[in-house]
Amino acid sequence: MATQVQTHVNGVNVDQLVGTINLIKENPGLARFTFRSKTEWVNGGHSRTQIQSFYGAGQEDTSRSQPFVLEGDEPPVLLGNNAGANAVEAVLHALASCLAVGFIYNAAAQGIKVDSLDFDVEGNLDLHAFLGLSDQVRPGYEGIRVNYRVKADAPRERLEALCDYVQKTSPVLDIIANPVPVTITMQS
Amino acid sequence: MATQVQTHVNGVNVDQLVGTINLIKENPGLARFTFRSKTEWVNGGHSRTQIQSFYGAGQEDTSRSQPFVLEGDEPPVLLGNNAGANAVEAVLHALASCLAVGFIYNAAAQGIKVDSLDFDVEGNLDLHAFLGLSDQVRPGYEGIRVNYRVKADAPRERLEALCDYVQKTSPVLDIIANPVPVTITMQS
Repeated sequence: MATQVQTHVNGVNVDQLVGTINLIKENPGLARFTFRSKTEWVNGGHSRTQIQSFYGAGQEDTSRSQPFVLEGDEPPVLLGNNAGANAVEAVLHALASCLAVGFIYNAAAQGIKVDSLDFDVEGNLDLHAFLGLSDQVRPGYEGIRVNYRVKADAPRERLEALCDYVQKTSPVLDIIANPVPVTITMQS
Repeated sequence: MATQVQTHVNGVNVDQLVGTINLIKENPGLARFTFRSKTEWVNGGHSRTQIQSFYGAGQEDTSRSQPFVLEGDEPPVLLGNNAGANAVEAVLHALASCLAVGFIYNAAAQGIKVDSLDFDVEGNLDLHAFLGLSDQVRPGYEGIRVNYRVKADAPRERLEALCDYVQKTSPVLDIIANPVPVTITMQS
């Protein structure tokens, strides 16, 4: 009788995951990705971002027939009309979404089945810099706090080790916790 | 004949903007904001974030009767199903959305009418760290490039000065370009 091999754990195709890792070991250039967005101002605090194409795994990706559309706006207290979450709120989404992928993929690779995983994230900032009232206060978050809850078929120590590992390898956590060079050009 | 005062520029209520700045000058604590998100893992690379409440201007905000819902997922080449933009793409949205608000609000405060404003953003990263194949490569973006196009009723030099000013005061640019302390706790 053939052994029944379970290739999906947590909705992740573990065979494909292992295959991707092996491909990149053989051809490191496949790990290079360029992601892109296009954002158009709509009115007041409202802008709209479209995200579709990217380059990765050695080619332009064509898997998305339509762009994802993300609305950004401010709440009325910040002079907007609540057409979408604001920019600093979108950062919190990006962080939790990244930690979720990292946790789930690594759990799958280790054969840990996750029943549920969720995150509460908050960040505090002071608007003095944004409003031009002080250059002694930073414009961005002074600090961000993430609270994770996870239920999975593994002992607590393994889940904590996984949580630590995910923190070392999370792209968005690195982007927030460490400096990224940003070049801004106004086209003529 | 009474002078017709134009209080909206670029869709921004300039009277309210000036009023907000004056209120904060009188009571600096009003500038303190705490933003929040809740993210729940769905399946595989797919998670869903809800963003609704925040604290700011001295109170809990109640302007949003429904949460904003942001989906995060990976494309198939990164083992997902394209249920949404991925986490590092959401960072690009956050950055452009923040620069747009900063540009438009400051232009409004200076009486500059903006006809159009849009941004192309891209960032490159190497997946070796995320996949656990190298600790010599950072997990996040190696660099981000923003290209701005703006049409407005002001000379080029003023727009460039505005662009420079926005870069000094943008919360998301600061979050990306400089380190933010992040505390991550797994709840028992």
